[in-house]
Amino acid sequence: MTPIKPRTMPGTMELLPADQIAFQQMLDTIRRAYERFAFLPIETPAMEFVDLLLTKSGGETEKQVYFAQSSGGRAKGEDPKLALRFDLTVPLARYVAEHEAKLTFPFRRYQMQRVYRGESAQKGRFREFYQCDADVVGKERLSIEYDAEIVALVAAVFRDLQVGDFEIRVNNRKVLAGFLASLGVTDPVARAAVLREVDKLDRVGVDRVAAALTSSPEPLLASAAADRLLNLVGIAGPGAAVVRQLSALGVDDDTYRTGVEELATVTESLPRYGVPDTCWGIHLAIARGLDYYTGTVYETLLRAHAEIGSVCSGGRYDDLAHYFTKSRLPGVGVSIGATRLFDQLQARGLLSGVGGGAADVVVLRFTPALAAECLAIGTELRTAGIPTEVLLEDWAPKKQLAWASQRGARYAVILGEDEHARGVVALKDLAKKAQEDVPRDRVTGHIQACADRTDSRR
Amino acid sequence: MTPIKPRTMPGTMELLPADQIAFQQMLDTIRRAYERFAFLPIETPAMEFVDLLLTKSGGETEKQVYFAQSSGGRAKGEDPKLALRFDLTVPLARYVAEHEAKLTFPFRRYQMQRVYRGESAQKGRFREFYQCDADVVGKERLSIEYDAEIVALVAAVFRDLQVGDFEIRVNNRKVLAGFLASLGVTDPVARAAVLREVDKLDRVGVDRVAAALTSSPEPLLASAAADRLLNLVGIAGPGAAVVRQLSALGVDDDTYRTGVEELATVTESLPRYGVPDTCWGIHLAIARGLDYYTGTVYETLLRAHAEIGSVCSGGRYDDLAHYFTKSRLPGVGVSIGATRLFDQLQARGLLSGVGGGAADVVVLRFTPALAAECLAIGTELRTAGIPTEVLLEDWAPKKQLAWASQRGARYAVILGEDEHARGVVALKDLAKKAQEDVPRDRVTGHIQACADRTDSRR
Repeated sequence: MTPIKPRTMPGTMELLPADQIAFQQMLDTIRRAYERFAFLPIETPAMEFVDLLLTKSGGETEKQVYFAQSSGGRAKGEDPKLALRFDLTVPLARYVAEHEAKLTFPFRRYQMQRVYRGESAQKGRFREFYQCDADVVGKERLSIEYDAEIVALVAAVFRDLQVGDFEIRVNNRKVLAGFLASLGVTDPVARAAVLREVDKLDRVGVDRVAAALTSSPEPLLASAAADRLLNLVGIAGPGAAVVRQLSALGVDDDTYRTGVEELATVTESLPRYGVPDTCWGIHLAIARGLDYYTGTVYETLLRAHAEIGSVCSGGRYDDLAHYFTKSRLPGVGVSIGATRLFDQLQARGLLSGVGGGAADVVVLRFTPALAAECLAIGTELRTAGIPTEVLLEDWAPKKQLAWASQRGARYAVILGEDEHARGVVALKDLAKKAQEDVPRDRVTGHIQACADRTDSRR
Repeated sequence: MTPIKPRTMPGTMELLPADQIAFQQMLDTIRRAYERFAFLPIETPAMEFVDLLLTKSGGETEKQVYFAQSSGGRAKGEDPKLALRFDLTVPLARYVAEHEAKLTFPFRRYQMQRVYRGESAQKGRFREFYQCDADVVGKERLSIEYDAEIVALVAAVFRDLQVGDFEIRVNNRKVLAGFLASLGVTDPVARAAVLREVDKLDRVGVDRVAAALTSSPEPLLASAAADRLLNLVGIAGPGAAVVRQLSALGVDDDTYRTGVEELATVTESLPRYGVPDTCWGIHLAIARGLDYYTGTVYETLLRAHAEIGSVCSGGRYDDLAHYFTKSRLPGVGVSIGATRLFDQLQARGLLSGVGGGAADVVVLRFTPALAAECLAIGTELRTAGIPTEVLLEDWAPKKQLAWASQRGARYAVILGEDEHARGVVALKDLAKKAQEDVPRDRVTGHIQACADRTDSRR
């Protein structure tokens, strides 16, 4: 029989074990930070009913959805009733609405699951990827102070991830909307069109955005108004300084004033969370494409790798679940695209600090007659919590040593007849390529001490 | 607008946060045991190509598969090329074959992901559920001693889960196959038919199985042969005793003898892993439906809840991936259906030992003027690693206290003007409903000490 070529769908990230360990450590780090801020975990099914999943979408989302159907439904020629989630926001809305009576508000949930998008396959685009979301959802109202807590949460996550300097960029769409209103742009469609152009600033530069805003036949803004807008969205810097600058602009619009006040609240709160000024700032150019956001918006850049783009984004929304409940559920949250983040960091060799197979041990079997003793050593090590594999094949010693290195273990325990006679084992540090004799009854304690020293150096 | 009723597909397990925490702890416990035995993690995409996924299946599997298709493919009227995995075994076979050159054998992998089956919706049947698999896969050959290690692994997992007494039931299909051969049943199809009847022993009892085996028009076995077989599959007990009994039967068949030898090897190894005789035994009635298994087979029962059925099953197979590679890849492994296990344990109230929101803290805000101080206390607690939520709403104190209880936190920190003036905070133990004053500068240490005491009692 000719084997079928084993292959995976393009646009998925399937890792070898050593990389999977590093990725798992990244997820665990994010999870621990979310839990430290007392966010509660939820998980939702990968499949949602189509009528619920596609309520809020325009055509764009629908084009990227994977529909799912069991063989039975297909055989009957039905339309698929299920589809795979494309983000964790719609499932959150459905979850909160479905379980509303049993939840305590403000409801703080985190969720770290895979989402699915039928993207065209191209480098760096994933069709299946992890999102790690944290949101605080209030009932009827939610204090603006939670918007500061989200900045503190993101700062904690990226500090813990140890991926170098980062910058959380904060803005408030009310400032942009109010400013545009003061320029005479009050129609939501026109406003969205202007903000879409502003969103391109980073990529195309100020001249092309200016041209797009003022170009005929139907310019979005008059030339003077475009200049004032581009002046505004050029403002960026530490929170307190930007808030002063925005207040001093004398824009006479209530929405604008509310937006500036909200930015001021966030700015005043953050030192209390121990968030240093150096890792966040207000950037008026951050518009975020989605109309969904109504106030604070966030993006996060790695300073040494700004070309990766935002690695953690989100914002404030007025009403999470109006499609599913009559309760008004305002909230604020962020999302980390962990698969893409890992992929980008790995491509740049920035993950050296993590992973690498953990400090595990392999017990070799040079002498078949001592096999039982090898098992006993393995059991002792595991009882002490040390990940241990006992090789159960009677290979030539040379093959066993080659295997231990290739296997990626940190230590190899070798028990030959000679060692056994002397009441010791040979302990080989496979990273340092050093070997020493350790008394049989001190093997576990010795490896534990070495592992502790390694851990504390991290 | 009338809201759409929020709902989830039947056959999924969606949990409230407190239960999700308990479920997460169950998964973490399983993962830690797998890692202690130095199994390496992998994850595979939820979708596989249809031609790969359905190679090995007969019609049964195909009937239960969820096909997946992006909007684009649907629009073109194509047949779906993708389907959701229905187990973790086919993905493992594909993974090992695809990455064969980069893996070290024996390859020890664990994988804990959701799988999907288009089951008809009925109580206790899940359409989406977690499988937690651990397998050792060799290249060309794999020592039978690994079959003992798997028993030790399962024993470690269920001991760690603390769900009461359990029994790992071990058998070897070579014993059954060899015994049947000695009765004249050598045709694989006939053998499978006999084993299917044997598999029903637990449910329908010995009389009905005997009737099914010997009933006309085409009896599977003559009456005397059926008696001998039913005598064999009635044998059960501690490993050493059963091995002696099987050897003493004097069955003259090489396959039978090999099977008994393999059971003897497993039996001899297990004490070295510290596995007590009380938690495992050999049960000749364990046949396992799947033809896939070729040697050792496992099932695991909770002694006080045998009606749940097997909570962890698996076995030895001759060749994992012959559809995808010419290499012979024998292996042995087990699978825990974690969603069903959790569901069954929860329904019986057997999860009281875990979960319950962890020892987290809420900081209340009785005095808006002290809001900054509340944030500072929260930051201190988090810096010490204690999950902490600071309430950021200015609610009436009574509402805040009710919220703290409902929220499920362990401690509430209350800072009123009176406490502030005295340099203390009021620390309320919400479980014990006790309250005490703690000096402001000792809050973190105090809660840490309480939490440590709670942990050590577990």
